[in-house]
Amino acid sequence: MTAPLHEGHPTGPGRALPDTQQGMRRRNLARVMHTVGAEGPLSRASVASRIGLTRAAVSTLVDELIRSGLLEELGPERPGRVGRPGSALAVSGRGPAGIGAEVGVDHLAVCAVDLRGEVRARAVRHGTNRGRAPGPVLEELASLLRLVVADAEREGLWPAGLAIAVPGLVAPDARTVVRAPNLGWHDLDLGALLPAELPLTVDNEANFGGLAELWLGEGTPRDFLHVSAEIGIGAAVVVDGRLLRGTRGFAGELGHVPVQPDGPECACGGRGCLEQYAGEEAVLRAAGLEPGEDRVGLLAGRAAAGDESVRQALRDAGTAFGVALTGAVNLLDPESVVLGGALAALAPWLLPSLREELARRTAGPACAVSVSRLGPEGPLLGAAHSVVRTVLDDPAAVAERG
Amino acid sequence: MTAPLHEGHPTGPGRALPDTQQGMRRRNLARVMHTVGAEGPLSRASVASRIGLTRAAVSTLVDELIRSGLLEELGPERPGRVGRPGSALAVSGRGPAGIGAEVGVDHLAVCAVDLRGEVRARAVRHGTNRGRAPGPVLEELASLLRLVVADAEREGLWPAGLAIAVPGLVAPDARTVVRAPNLGWHDLDLGALLPAELPLTVDNEANFGGLAELWLGEGTPRDFLHVSAEIGIGAAVVVDGRLLRGTRGFAGELGHVPVQPDGPECACGGRGCLEQYAGEEAVLRAAGLEPGEDRVGLLAGRAAAGDESVRQALRDAGTAFGVALTGAVNLLDPESVVLGGALAALAPWLLPSLREELARRTAGPACAVSVSRLGPEGPLLGAAHSVVRTVLDDPAAVAERG
Repeated sequence: MTAPLHEGHPTGPGRALPDTQQGMRRRNLARVMHTVGAEGPLSRASVASRIGLTRAAVSTLVDELIRSGLLEELGPERPGRVGRPGSALAVSGRGPAGIGAEVGVDHLAVCAVDLRGEVRARAVRHGTNRGRAPGPVLEELASLLRLVVADAEREGLWPAGLAIAVPGLVAPDARTVVRAPNLGWHDLDLGALLPAELPLTVDNEANFGGLAELWLGEGTPRDFLHVSAEIGIGAAVVVDGRLLRGTRGFAGELGHVPVQPDGPECACGGRGCLEQYAGEEAVLRAAGLEPGEDRVGLLAGRAAAGDESVRQALRDAGTAFGVALTGAVNLLDPESVVLGGALAALAPWLLPSLREELARRTAGPACAVSVSRLGPEGPLLGAAHSVVRTVLDDPAAVAERG
Repeated sequence: MTAPLHEGHPTGPGRALPDTQQGMRRRNLARVMHTVGAEGPLSRASVASRIGLTRAAVSTLVDELIRSGLLEELGPERPGRVGRPGSALAVSGRGPAGIGAEVGVDHLAVCAVDLRGEVRARAVRHGTNRGRAPGPVLEELASLLRLVVADAEREGLWPAGLAIAVPGLVAPDARTVVRAPNLGWHDLDLGALLPAELPLTVDNEANFGGLAELWLGEGTPRDFLHVSAEIGIGAAVVVDGRLLRGTRGFAGELGHVPVQPDGPECACGGRGCLEQYAGEEAVLRAAGLEPGEDRVGLLAGRAAAGDESVRQALRDAGTAFGVALTGAVNLLDPESVVLGGALAALAPWLLPSLREELARRTAGPACAVSVSRLGPEGPLLGAAHSVVRTVLDDPAAVAERG
C-alpha cells in the first residue's frame, strides 16, 4: 500500500477515485457505508433519501455491500413509520477490522476496532522503550499484534490493515521513522522489520491523536488544533475535517514555536521554544523533580496533593502555552483548541493560566480551549480507526480483497 | 451568489457538484476547460488522452463548450504529428471575463481578465481613502467599474462576476466588511452599496494576493505562506493548493503573532505582536520618519539612497519577521514563504536579516523565502482571476447564464 491510509475523510466519498461510471459506483458504495455507519440502523429508503439517489440504485449498492459482508440486515424496522416497513441495515460487526498499534516511550499497545467503531481486542505492555534497539521492541510489538489478531479472528473479524503511532517524525512513505528522539530511533523502515502480511501505515502520534479527536470526540468541530505531549509537545492541525500534514509531513510542531526569542537554546536549533517552558522535562526541572518513568502521573499526583512548586511550574507552562497558542490561533483561526494525550491529565493545572493568557492577547472572544475525553488512548484509537475509515471510504476495494 | 467565488481549485473539477450523471458531465466540462486553458492549443485527441476519457466523449464536451463560446477552434494543429491533424482548441478570448477590484488605503483599481488570463481593461485612481465615508469611495469605484466594463464589452467580453479585495476582515457571506481599521470601515455590506448587476465576492486583500501567487506565480508550490502588507501585516496560508480561511475567515493574521511576549501593547489586545516591530508605522517610527501617503515608496527610496537609519529599521523588521515566521513554519511546514504586496518593494533590505533569523532557529535546512514578482498588483489580479476560475470550474453554469 503506497498511499497513506489515514487522511481525514470524515464524509468519506473517496475523492481520489476516478470520475468514471466505475468510480461513481465506488463513491456511492462509500456514501452508503458512511451513512449507515453514522446514522444506522436505516432502511434502504432512508438511505436513499439521505444520499439523494433512487431507492433502486441504493438497493443495488446495498445488495453488493451485504454480499461482501460489510452491511447486514437486522430485520424489519420498528413499526409506526409511513409505508411498508423496510429491513433495517447496519454496519457488520464481523468482517474487516482495523488494527491500531502504538510505540510509546513508556509502553506498547495494539487494538482491533470493527467497522462499527468498537474495540474488540486489545493488548498492552508497560515498560520503557527509551534507548532500546528497535529490533526487540518491534518483536514485542509483533507478539502483541499476533495476540490481538487471534482474538479478533475468534470474533469473526479479519485484519484489513495495520496503522502504527510513533512519537516522532515519519517520512512521506508512511513507513519510515525519520527521527524519534525520545526512543533514539532514526531512519528506520518499520515495514521491513514487521511481518509483511498487512497493509501498513506509520504516522506521528500527535496526528493520530488529532484524527481520533476528529472522528471520536464529542462535538469536535471540523477546524481545530489538537495539542498533545509525550515528552515532546506536538499538535495536529485539522482544517475542514482534514489533517494538515505540511510539505515534508512536519506540520504541527507547536513545541518549537518561539515564546521568548532570547530564551534558552533548544535541541531544534532555535531559542526559547515552547518546549523549553512547557515540555515535560522543563516542568519537572522547574518543579525540582527528577524525570522518571511515569512523569505525567508524578506531576498530576503532586499537583492534586497540593504541591505548590509543581502547581506553579504547571501554571507557568500554561502561560507559555497561551503565548504559543495565540500565534497559532492568529494564523489558523480554529474553532477550538483541544488538549489531548498526556496533557489531558494535567489540564486542571494548565488550563486556568493558558486560558487567561490567550484571552489577554485577544481583542474579540478568545478561542475555546477544551480537554479531550480520549486522553492518552487517542493515538492508538486514531490508528485503528484510520484503517476502519479506509474500508468505509472505498468498500469495493476491501470486498475485492476480503 | 451565496458561495464564495474565490476558493483555490487549481485543477478545478468543481468538487462540490453532486455525484450524478449530470454532475459528472459538469465536472468533465471543467476538466476540458482547465486542460485546454493550462496546456492549449490542443486537439480533441490530446485533450482526451490528458484527462483519460474517450475521444468521442471529449468531442461531445468540446462541442458544447464551443457552442457556449468558451472554447474556440484555431484550425488544424501544426503538422509533423502522427495521424490525421486535429483542429486545435483554445480557450476563447471573447465571452465571459472576470472583473477584479481593489479598495486600497491609498488607491482604487478595477480590471477585466479574460478566460485566457489576460488583462483586457484596467482603471486606477490614486489618492487616500483613509477615513473617507464609504458612500463616495464606492461611488468612485462604481465609476471605474463602468469604465472597465464598457472597455471589455467593446472587446467582445461580458462580465461574469465582480470580486473586490479590501484591506480588512470579511464576513463568511463574502459581502460584508467586518472591519477595515485603516479605512475606518466596519460592518459594511458592499453588496448593498454597489450596482447589483453582477455576482459579487468580497475578500481580504491578503487572501486574493495569496491566490494570485498560487495561480500566476512562477514555480509557486501548492503549500506556501504568502506574506503581504498594506499598513497592516497579513498572510495567506495555502495548503495543497487551497486557501486556508479559518473558522470565521480570520486565518493568516501573521501581524498578531507574538514575537516578544512582554513587548508593546497592540490594538488587537495583545502585546509584542509582529506588527509592533515590522508594521509600516513601527518601521517609519524606528527610522524617525513621518507616515505620509506613499509610505513604502518613502522607505524604499531612502533605503536605496543609503539612509542608514532606514536600513537599520528594515533590518530589525526582518529579524522580527524571522521570529514570527519560525513559528508559522513549525506549525504549517510550507514549501516556501513568499513576500508579496508592498513587502516585495522592501525585500532587498528585509530579506537578509529575515533569512538569517529563520535559518538560525531551524536545525535542518531553513524554509525557502522568495519575493513575489506580482508585487502590489497581486490582490487586484487575484480578485479578477478568482472570477475567471469560477467559470473554468463550472463552465456549464456560465453557459446557461451567458
